[in-house]
Amino acid sequence: MEESIKKLDAFFNPRSVAVIGATEGKGKAGAIIFKNFATNKQRGTFKGELYPINPKAQELLGIKCYKTLSEVPGDVDLIVVIVPSGAVAGVIEEAGKKNTKAAVIISAGFKEVGNNELEEQVVEVAKKYGIRVLGPNCLGVFYAKTGVDSIFLPEYKELSTGKEIIATPRPLSGNIAMITQSGAFGSAALDYLAGRNMGVSKFVSFGNKCDASESDVLEYLLEDEETHVVLIYLEDIKSGKDFLRVAKKVSLKKPIVMIKSGRSEAGARAAASHTGAIAGTDKIYDAAFEKTGVIRAKNMNEFFIMGKALVSMKPAVGTNIGILTDAGGPGVMCVDECETVGLTVNKFSDPILAKFEELKENGKILKIAATHNPVDLTGSVVDDQFVVSADLMFQEKSISGIIFLGLHHMPGLQETYITGVAQIAAKYDIPIVACDIGETEMALYTRDHFDRLGLPAYSSPEDAAHAMKALLQYGGFLQKNCALDAYIAEYNKRKAVKQ
Amino acid sequence: MEESIKKLDAFFNPRSVAVIGATEGKGKAGAIIFKNFATNKQRGTFKGELYPINPKAQELLGIKCYKTLSEVPGDVDLIVVIVPSGAVAGVIEEAGKKNTKAAVIISAGFKEVGNNELEEQVVEVAKKYGIRVLGPNCLGVFYAKTGVDSIFLPEYKELSTGKEIIATPRPLSGNIAMITQSGAFGSAALDYLAGRNMGVSKFVSFGNKCDASESDVLEYLLEDEETHVVLIYLEDIKSGKDFLRVAKKVSLKKPIVMIKSGRSEAGARAAASHTGAIAGTDKIYDAAFEKTGVIRAKNMNEFFIMGKALVSMKPAVGTNIGILTDAGGPGVMCVDECETVGLTVNKFSDPILAKFEELKENGKILKIAATHNPVDLTGSVVDDQFVVSADLMFQEKSISGIIFLGLHHMPGLQETYITGVAQIAAKYDIPIVACDIGETEMALYTRDHFDRLGLPAYSSPEDAAHAMKALLQYGGFLQKNCALDAYIAEYNKRKAVKQ
Repeated sequence: MEESIKKLDAFFNPRSVAVIGATEGKGKAGAIIFKNFATNKQRGTFKGELYPINPKAQELLGIKCYKTLSEVPGDVDLIVVIVPSGAVAGVIEEAGKKNTKAAVIISAGFKEVGNNELEEQVVEVAKKYGIRVLGPNCLGVFYAKTGVDSIFLPEYKELSTGKEIIATPRPLSGNIAMITQSGAFGSAALDYLAGRNMGVSKFVSFGNKCDASESDVLEYLLEDEETHVVLIYLEDIKSGKDFLRVAKKVSLKKPIVMIKSGRSEAGARAAASHTGAIAGTDKIYDAAFEKTGVIRAKNMNEFFIMGKALVSMKPAVGTNIGILTDAGGPGVMCVDECETVGLTVNKFSDPILAKFEELKENGKILKIAATHNPVDLTGSVVDDQFVVSADLMFQEKSISGIIFLGLHHMPGLQETYITGVAQIAAKYDIPIVACDIGETEMALYTRDHFDRLGLPAYSSPEDAAHAMKALLQYGGFLQKNCALDAYIAEYNKRKAVKQ
Repeated sequence: MEESIKKLDAFFNPRSVAVIGATEGKGKAGAIIFKNFATNKQRGTFKGELYPINPKAQELLGIKCYKTLSEVPGDVDLIVVIVPSGAVAGVIEEAGKKNTKAAVIISAGFKEVGNNELEEQVVEVAKKYGIRVLGPNCLGVFYAKTGVDSIFLPEYKELSTGKEIIATPRPLSGNIAMITQSGAFGSAALDYLAGRNMGVSKFVSFGNKCDASESDVLEYLLEDEETHVVLIYLEDIKSGKDFLRVAKKVSLKKPIVMIKSGRSEAGARAAASHTGAIAGTDKIYDAAFEKTGVIRAKNMNEFFIMGKALVSMKPAVGTNIGILTDAGGPGVMCVDECETVGLTVNKFSDPILAKFEELKENGKILKIAATHNPVDLTGSVVDDQFVVSADLMFQEKSISGIIFLGLHHMPGLQETYITGVAQIAAKYDIPIVACDIGETEMALYTRDHFDRLGLPAYSSPEDAAHAMKALLQYGGFLQKNCALDAYIAEYNKRKAVKQ
């Protein structure tokens, strides 16, 4: 790894952090960020030295405060800067003398409001000292494991009733890296991921990306063992050349799911006024993503659907899939969406169809079940029928993935089919995704049960189809680039460690 | 209203109900359905006479049981039939002599498994006596207000731990009629609607629709004051001629949102084996829906998104909308999706832009805010800025709707902007929809708060765009057919009654 990329490690594993502009004022960014670090130090997750910098305070939250960065004894790996934009370059200059490796510049008031010169000045000073910069105008970094949290959005808010409720939760540790140009979307993503129990390996918001860009962060994540999937929100790409080189390298080892917004003309105009991004022709992006294996999500729902599938399930090669359902209508809806996204749901081969007939004759499944694909066990399903049918479907050579639609409303379907299906699935390299529809207790329970067994579950048949599409699209990319076997081997190794 | 349609009223408001095949066996359809009625009678929602029919029982749940329907004293308005398919025609014959108006045939084993003759026999007998039939092979009817509930899916299920959890909830009373050809999708829809606090006026599952079809039910709902929106799932249409006539008549008074599945070739094949439906060429359906004003949903999420928008918000005419956001990235995503669905997000007129500049000069909004549309108040937003900007946007003549993206993560945004926005919105005929992203406490709270004020709120910017599209699509249809003013007058009357 290049030295400049290696340096990014100081964002996630700093031995010492200075918060420049730390304060106690309620609701202020400098207060929230400093409190994040102080709390995490107390909790024992942040193990480094912590220096609040504020010319007017003696101590903050019981921690000795320094008037300037220069006054801090010894080196400072990482600084988080919350001072007014005009003062930022000076702070970076000071940091240079403290051997600082990385700076998160929270402060706004740079390129995004036309102050290009001010931003270039910061870049110049940082370059002089070899300091890597995230921002300005960003949320910076959240890394649960080491307690680095420069997000200035409070975890809790007080309602007018006085009640405190969770506002911007920090997700648990996990294997999804969430990388974003938009801080607002980043915080929303944290909220979504936390609420859906999807763990995060690293969170990075790079705002104006005056220095560290999407390509730099991607390159860093290439070697990050905790990151298995990268979710990334972009409005533009800093350097197309860098991106093409890095994104493909990363995609060969771990999937990248991307929202590239500004895809419409009006959207591009809005993006320009948001981050000054020149969104470029959308078709160029599509071509670049296809070349590099980046999986593009059309919208937020798809973004998280695909991320969830890829972080928990193995990819595969092919476009034809099997569907097993206990619900006719949702089965048809799932087939419709599969075809819409370029998958097929072809009739099974004769030997498998014959075996399904045997199941009928032996009373293992109902005579009225449809078995041509989708397999529809009908509303009279019981758990064993689901499991025995799943087992048979895994033996069908023509399919590359299976979608299970187990609507729990059917009177005879209990929960035992879930573990049954999971045990069978573990014996095969065919990816599966599950679906149960509903927003009350048993639907949530069923999906959660699948999720906990490592089988991604969705709340609509169409979402399940999109999840499967992501797995097969990524598998196709890996295969084309002779990287599938290595990926599956790595995936299986990780799986074995978990068990 | 025709006599045959008027008769459908017995499905929803029967003075007496006989459950033929009532029993006490755990998990059996006949037991669950009879218990539904018995419980609702106890609760006082079902006020009619209740007759369990079972040759082997003296009484069931404390209610006198009859060996046959013929033994029941007096007339029976509605029968629910759960006996084996071969015995159904005989039961209908008996019902004819009891002046029965309506029969829900739960029993399967008819056309859907090739027993066409058996089904035709049932139709013949029913016709002889003028009995309207729902089914066979259906869930029948759920109507919270009168306690009619022929759904044989138990409300609760027992997990292997012994814990009882909600499995198929019955939603509260409300203004959405949910009509479905697929019972499985119907039950899933009930689960979704209950979980999302969307109230249901009438639920009808017609399965094989041997008699009462989508057109009949739609025609009945035309005059149903409790139904403001019809959500309908179909795999085929029984009579295209009837549908064209009725659907348009209904659409002029209340919106119909439709999933017509089997839109792909493989989906059509799956539908054929599910309900024997001949799905037909999808483009023909598209044309029919356009002609009749039916709003077609491409998938389940869109189905409910649109239904929610149309049941709580007024439609309008036009395609250009305004977006007000505190989150740049999600603002861009919303613009992208608006353009994708055929809406525009054009720059505001000069007078409004000038007024936004005044707001900046007076310190009412931040100087760094973008105001060209979308209006991006930035992450430094506070509630008052949101409200004052909303107020100004309502004065922009070129827009037909407004999407509010109020991401609660911004430190300065509290909850008061929600009521502020609602108060302003009440003064204008411009529809609005709201969005906050996240799956934890404050996101759920914010969306719920909007919902309770009658402003439909969504969890992604793209969902909000689809909701707005539905409102403008429906408004366009009404306008083209000179029905908009009448609709809005009716809408406002209802709104006034509520307050």
